[in-house]
Amino acid sequence: MKKEKAVVLLSGGLDSATCLAIAQAEGFDVHTLTFQYGQRHQVELDAAKNIIDRAGIPAGQRHQISFDLREWGGSALTADIDVPDAELDNGKVPITYVPARNTIFLSFAAALAETIGAKTIYVGVNSLDYSGYPDCRPAFIKSFELTATLGTKAVDENWTFDVRAPLQYLTKAEIIKKGLELGVDYSITHSCYNPKEDGSPCLKCDSCALRQRAFGELGMKDPAVK
Amino acid sequence: MKKEKAVVLLSGGLDSATCLAIAQAEGFDVHTLTFQYGQRHQVELDAAKNIIDRAGIPAGQRHQISFDLREWGGSALTADIDVPDAELDNGKVPITYVPARNTIFLSFAAALAETIGAKTIYVGVNSLDYSGYPDCRPAFIKSFELTATLGTKAVDENWTFDVRAPLQYLTKAEIIKKGLELGVDYSITHSCYNPKEDGSPCLKCDSCALRQRAFGELGMKDPAVK
Repeated sequence: MKKEKAVVLLSGGLDSATCLAIAQAEGFDVHTLTFQYGQRHQVELDAAKNIIDRAGIPAGQRHQISFDLREWGGSALTADIDVPDAELDNGKVPITYVPARNTIFLSFAAALAETIGAKTIYVGVNSLDYSGYPDCRPAFIKSFELTATLGTKAVDENWTFDVRAPLQYLTKAEIIKKGLELGVDYSITHSCYNPKEDGSPCLKCDSCALRQRAFGELGMKDPAVK
Repeated sequence: MKKEKAVVLLSGGLDSATCLAIAQAEGFDVHTLTFQYGQRHQVELDAAKNIIDRAGIPAGQRHQISFDLREWGGSALTADIDVPDAELDNGKVPITYVPARNTIFLSFAAALAETIGAKTIYVGVNSLDYSGYPDCRPAFIKSFELTATLGTKAVDENWTFDVRAPLQYLTKAEIIKKGLELGVDYSITHSCYNPKEDGSPCLKCDSCALRQRAFGELGMKDPAVK
């Protein structure tokens, strides 16, 4: 039987690499979608390519869309604003938040899905060990599912988009544990918001802090840190 | 008193030109947003520029985002598929429909709005004299409003996006009448899906058919047709 198709949003980070492994384990024929959006950490695109290679995604199923959010900036990732050291759990949306980024990413995913005949989209958002970004929360994901359904042929063809966020309620340590079970190679993933010249992680930003804490909880050393 | 900001999606067509005039008439300080998305009718971007010039939008408030939907195609506007002659009102979504295009466009509009501190977005969709595209219907627009609110700081700051579609329930002739009252110069707008080499409209596609019918109903000649 021919496998059903799914679109997996892939950033090159730990979460989306795990998400890709889950989509494959759940039996989907995966199309990956990565973005070059003017982010300061280009190194994550190299990581994404390595993850895609390792997952064996065929050439015609690796999609990339480029646009430049520095047109208006508004985030430490897309404007000349310094990435701050980690400030976890202070209840504020941090300056690394990129306005409406996941809405944009998911919109392109819905466009790709509709075009290739996929009804399922995987996104590696998480609302436990996260930076407080509004577009990582379950209410947003649910709402997007409906919007994508109403804004495409899905509504006329009587099907609905299934946007899966399998990491939503996992801690970062649980995500890593799950990924290791599925054979994810975390040494090739990249999570840092503000990598050094040589591409290595700063070990100071929110994203590094969450990642290091999680590997610590598992009694492991992060394989991406030399 | 300082005017409130609004983002207006502008394609260079008749509808969005009218929408821009309405936003200005409603007292907003307008930021325009246009897209270079790999569409076959580049001439509409020249039209958009002329409309923006005429509306007197300041330099820092004219935004353009480029990306290439030919990455996956799926539409006569973004792939090597011929634009068919008009087939209005046959109840089918036509091949000129670009998968999830308005979801993508509105997502960027929400990102821009959040960044500049605007809560209002204008979009020239219409569900009377239209080609049957799902992403022009009222249910989609309402759903997007909620998704954009939940996927941005709006949800934490206790405000909601106001996505205005002032043309939603107007016939094409009523849109033109409204625009003429507001001083819109339709001679510089471009609506054709499949323009000739010199940029002039084909007068055969859905979009041309709707436009010509409307000017006819008003007993006028389309000022954009030489």
